[in-house]
Amino acid sequence: MTKSADAFEKSLNTHATLVEARLDILLDATPRPAEVVRPRRLIEAMHYGALNGGKRLRPYLVMQAARLFGGSEEAALQVGCALECLHSYSLVHDDLPAMDDDDLRRGKPTVHKQYDEATAILAGDGLLTYAFDIIASPDTPLPDAAKVALVLELSRAAGIGGMAGGQMLDLVAETDQPDEAGIVMLQAMKTGALLRFACEAGAIIAGRATEDRDRLRRFGEIIGRAFQLADDLLDITSDAATLGKATGKDAAKGKATLVGLKGTDWARAELDRLVAEANALLEPYGEQAEPLKEAAHFIAYRKK
Amino acid sequence: MTKSADAFEKSLNTHATLVEARLDILLDATPRPAEVVRPRRLIEAMHYGALNGGKRLRPYLVMQAARLFGGSEEAALQVGCALECLHSYSLVHDDLPAMDDDDLRRGKPTVHKQYDEATAILAGDGLLTYAFDIIASPDTPLPDAAKVALVLELSRAAGIGGMAGGQMLDLVAETDQPDEAGIVMLQAMKTGALLRFACEAGAIIAGRATEDRDRLRRFGEIIGRAFQLADDLLDITSDAATLGKATGKDAAKGKATLVGLKGTDWARAELDRLVAEANALLEPYGEQAEPLKEAAHFIAYRKK
Repeated sequence: MTKSADAFEKSLNTHATLVEARLDILLDATPRPAEVVRPRRLIEAMHYGALNGGKRLRPYLVMQAARLFGGSEEAALQVGCALECLHSYSLVHDDLPAMDDDDLRRGKPTVHKQYDEATAILAGDGLLTYAFDIIASPDTPLPDAAKVALVLELSRAAGIGGMAGGQMLDLVAETDQPDEAGIVMLQAMKTGALLRFACEAGAIIAGRATEDRDRLRRFGEIIGRAFQLADDLLDITSDAATLGKATGKDAAKGKATLVGLKGTDWARAELDRLVAEANALLEPYGEQAEPLKEAAHFIAYRKK
Repeated sequence: MTKSADAFEKSLNTHATLVEARLDILLDATPRPAEVVRPRRLIEAMHYGALNGGKRLRPYLVMQAARLFGGSEEAALQVGCALECLHSYSLVHDDLPAMDDDDLRRGKPTVHKQYDEATAILAGDGLLTYAFDIIASPDTPLPDAAKVALVLELSRAAGIGGMAGGQMLDLVAETDQPDEAGIVMLQAMKTGALLRFACEAGAIIAGRATEDRDRLRRFGEIIGRAFQLADDLLDITSDAATLGKATGKDAAKGKATLVGLKGTDWARAELDRLVAEANALLEPYGEQAEPLKEAAHFIAYRKK
């Protein structure tokens, strides 16, 4: 497994390099049309917020899911970048003083610390908006039907019924503790929705019919649950040096997690169960699905 | 002219009622799918931010421009609501303490005053995201090609090269005074881009070819300039009771405006010139274009 895990991380890094190179171009290419004044500070802050390291796991999933069905590599890279802009916006806004009030992200000042709050709010707004620009762009080689499906699924994954709604429930949860089902739903919305979108997007890019789309969507849902469970487990069992961020944050905030409710042994067994369920969904695709299975494994058992 | 102006305001109000009834349904319909928990506080705050009065000028322009070319009334209403969600998001975020720090909007507490800052940030994010959901929705009866064009134009009008970029330039302008050309560009981005989109959207909804789209786009650009000029003029010449908001704000902030630079006489003459230019663009459409011409007149000569 170690050899395969090493190979997976190499592949993840290779894709991350591709994604970052493209993001760099995309974020520098704006604004169009040419005659518009370049609001330099905003473009810099968007760059800073989007190009700050990170595993680029969501674009990786888009690209591997598209590849599974022979979808356009170029389109998958573009859609992966759109998704990463959207993910980056959520981090920039979540870090704001009125939200999680974080000064550091991956060891560097957060956008509102590096620039200022107004710029960070606008940079988040700009990244969110730009995600849809990239999908609809003539530079993204997809039929209109696929673009409309991607815009619809992404806006729903990011909106009230997805990430933004989950973030609201999370803010309310600090005073109004949810039960187990409430936590599962909150996490599925806040974290799961974008990971689910990443996997389903691959099938949409490749023009697959409902059955494959549903299968990838369910796979994405399950690895989304594994992602959050692994995160909560690391918050308890890891240390700040390994993780590159403070640990024990959930307990300190009094935030209810499944690991807190049901213990670390349960969480480890549940991760095994989720990985098996995710793998089973990909069985029909045989060996072609190996990269996605490795991604599920990585998500569940990562050390940081 | 008075009789016609009265009739125009009645028509504007009738359309506003339609738009608000639809917005009420659209914002209550979220989230989908049904099994998702409803983050009630977020939905309420989005409602509060979007349904707070207002002339609904942008949806009116979308609907009248679509009607000019015989476009779908239903699609125009949906796209008008999407645009109004996007416009509302910009107001919610602009009012935040880190931005313009306004406690009141149209005489009522701003969203962050009524709820809190975190909720206001999320409500703005939610409204921005939902705009794209509405356009891509199966409930919006348009061909995919039109939806993709609308997503692309709206994201560009709202993004770095449009509204968000203009807001950034405006924030920087408080310390770094732009010249006349700089002010024109800033205002075209910050205020003009969405009005331009509103008019062009009508042509897209009706499936018109490049020439009509360009003509409506230019019409929208010109009424966008008139809108901002009228706004700056009212800020100097009106009083708070008539306007329903504080006046003299630009001067108090040391914000450079064209009226401040070139005087009220110049501004009034420029408004006449812009209205004539806007009307001339619509000449090929004859009497059918009367509602849009009346809108241009209203925008330039409104008293509040």
